[in-house]
Amino acid sequence: MRITSIREKAVSIPSAIRNAVIDFSEMTVSVVAIVTDVVRGGRPLIGYGFHSNGRYAQSGILRERLIPRLLKAAPEALLSDSGENFDPFKAWRVMMSNEKPGGHGERSVAVGTLDMALWDLVAKVEEKPLYRLLADRFRGGVAERDVYVYAAGGYYYPGKDLSALQDEIRSYLGMGYHTVKIKIGGASLDDDLKRIEAVLKILSKGDELAVDANGRFDLETALRYADALAHYPLKWYEEPGDPLDYALNAEVAKRTTVPLATGENLFSFHDARNLVRYGGLEASRDYLQIDPALSYGLVEYLRILEMLKEHGWSWRRCIPHGGHQMTLHIAAGLGLGGNEAYPGVFEPFGGFADNVPVENGRVRLPDAPGIGIELKAELMKVFQSLA
Amino acid sequence: MRITSIREKAVSIPSAIRNAVIDFSEMTVSVVAIVTDVVRGGRPLIGYGFHSNGRYAQSGILRERLIPRLLKAAPEALLSDSGENFDPFKAWRVMMSNEKPGGHGERSVAVGTLDMALWDLVAKVEEKPLYRLLADRFRGGVAERDVYVYAAGGYYYPGKDLSALQDEIRSYLGMGYHTVKIKIGGASLDDDLKRIEAVLKILSKGDELAVDANGRFDLETALRYADALAHYPLKWYEEPGDPLDYALNAEVAKRTTVPLATGENLFSFHDARNLVRYGGLEASRDYLQIDPALSYGLVEYLRILEMLKEHGWSWRRCIPHGGHQMTLHIAAGLGLGGNEAYPGVFEPFGGFADNVPVENGRVRLPDAPGIGIELKAELMKVFQSLA
Repeated sequence: MRITSIREKAVSIPSAIRNAVIDFSEMTVSVVAIVTDVVRGGRPLIGYGFHSNGRYAQSGILRERLIPRLLKAAPEALLSDSGENFDPFKAWRVMMSNEKPGGHGERSVAVGTLDMALWDLVAKVEEKPLYRLLADRFRGGVAERDVYVYAAGGYYYPGKDLSALQDEIRSYLGMGYHTVKIKIGGASLDDDLKRIEAVLKILSKGDELAVDANGRFDLETALRYADALAHYPLKWYEEPGDPLDYALNAEVAKRTTVPLATGENLFSFHDARNLVRYGGLEASRDYLQIDPALSYGLVEYLRILEMLKEHGWSWRRCIPHGGHQMTLHIAAGLGLGGNEAYPGVFEPFGGFADNVPVENGRVRLPDAPGIGIELKAELMKVFQSLA
Repeated sequence: MRITSIREKAVSIPSAIRNAVIDFSEMTVSVVAIVTDVVRGGRPLIGYGFHSNGRYAQSGILRERLIPRLLKAAPEALLSDSGENFDPFKAWRVMMSNEKPGGHGERSVAVGTLDMALWDLVAKVEEKPLYRLLADRFRGGVAERDVYVYAAGGYYYPGKDLSALQDEIRSYLGMGYHTVKIKIGGASLDDDLKRIEAVLKILSKGDELAVDANGRFDLETALRYADALAHYPLKWYEEPGDPLDYALNAEVAKRTTVPLATGENLFSFHDARNLVRYGGLEASRDYLQIDPALSYGLVEYLRILEMLKEHGWSWRRCIPHGGHQMTLHIAAGLGLGGNEAYPGVFEPFGGFADNVPVENGRVRLPDAPGIGIELKAELMKVFQSLA
């Protein structure tokens, strides 16, 4: 049982959207296919991986460092002790050999991309959907059959007014979402409050709108927004300040009654632990959004979850960034609090299996082996182009 | 005045050495040349840049993101307000456009590489050595003419015994160094103490040996080493634990009397500030080794220095990782505490101008415009191969 080849390319996912910090007009994503000598249905078994949006394709690190290390490793060095399946934990150590500690960006995305393909492969070898495999291995077999999802949108784009924003939100409600998220911080506070009020008008009850500043604010602005946001029934106030400014986060956490959410721009166990140690978050109120596909993969995410448990955090407080099937499986298999979704953007990487609608704010898990990338026709076309 | 092209390639700098975490057999470094339409001596002025060892070449990020952004920018967007020189601060903003906050690794190296070339260029336009330009701009004209350097060596390699280690250290003393550094943590504590004692025997006085664990230890081991090291007159105990484990660092800082040194694996203003906020370091005792060439360049390093001043740290406590001419100029121009050197390894990138010996533990600054890469014949061959 061995890997016979690993294919990789960078794919463009341009979009006209903009958050408070960047535009997505030149966004790219890496896709990988890990081809094996395991034969199923007369064809070699292949694991597919990609990474979440917002960080660019990682062709350099994949081609120059990680893929050569996996291909150079003795085949058994990548297998479970029984030799009956691939072992993502062992593969992780191989990928990270001769890598220094610290500096958790980019490399974490490249590892996360290959880690996704490895878990896809492992679940396919066991002929289980990934969420089921994860529940069996790490949660005594208890899995959720559907997962809470929220629609992340409300991006800024040229010419978009309040009524266009309301139309966008109505379209999410029409798709079956209950909770929506909009960007703040890319306009003045006054304008952002008007946007918030416009959206609240069309939501059926409170606690269904989250707002996201994408780490843009300095302390004074973060607190000014915190004070203003406290007048609305918000689901959460996301990334007020720089993701690494734990002191700012702690100040906002102390001042506000609105739940905070952050972590999508922390890409390692060590950074996540620092957030928990220093960020002033409340385990009974706040949310953690660390994204496994950008953060050294599920192997590292399991370390993060273990650390959270030791610090008294329920995994239900975790709602990963990413908006794709990998995080959906992790949420269902490990019992997280939910998953992000980006209706209509970052396609075909965003979203879930074709023909599985959002119902009552939740998404069901597919039964196909692996992550179910084969269940998204447009996404499979991307992977077929790798051949 | 504009950039006409930017050349880039990855260069192999393999070495048989090993620290407690990685070996350097497949180490690479990125080199860049920024070619301009400024003519000096009948030839276009070129800025040269590379990055420090330990993190790999960054061809992907350079080619796919940073270099295209610089070349696409309006020429005046990269110039000082007077239009008489290039402006590394403006170039920095262009390079970092559409980059999300957080995730400071790899990208920080790629930016640092181009930043070095930009400062080389800026100093050449003004026909000054870089240290003089930095002193004029940021320190009221006060510059040092020579800089304290220490020889970082004592790596592990197969078959190296105590007498080979002593021979290595004697060779550094023969070259003019007074302070030396050796690795620890790649052997047992007992063996490491024997190595320390072997080296101390041949040093003329105390406080001339530093030891470096390269972030390998857990808390218990870090404290065990701290207790054992306190019996020797050491210059510093470097990176006991993971670079991001500020709590571990703070525990060691509280327990030991040996000065601590760390920071070479923190690659941004935000990470450096977290070290200062949470790492328990003492501004009167400890050292900061943040490496500008791996950390978004001198532009970001100036922000870090400003932050240190606000936190009551003298710039004399800064002795950057890197061991090359860029950090030597920064140390001399801004009045840092010194600079690392790696005699005989990481050549031709390591080390200083040819024919400038280390004397009495210090190195003189060259008078040539820019960083003085032209004063290192073997290094210039690498850059000539870029043409």
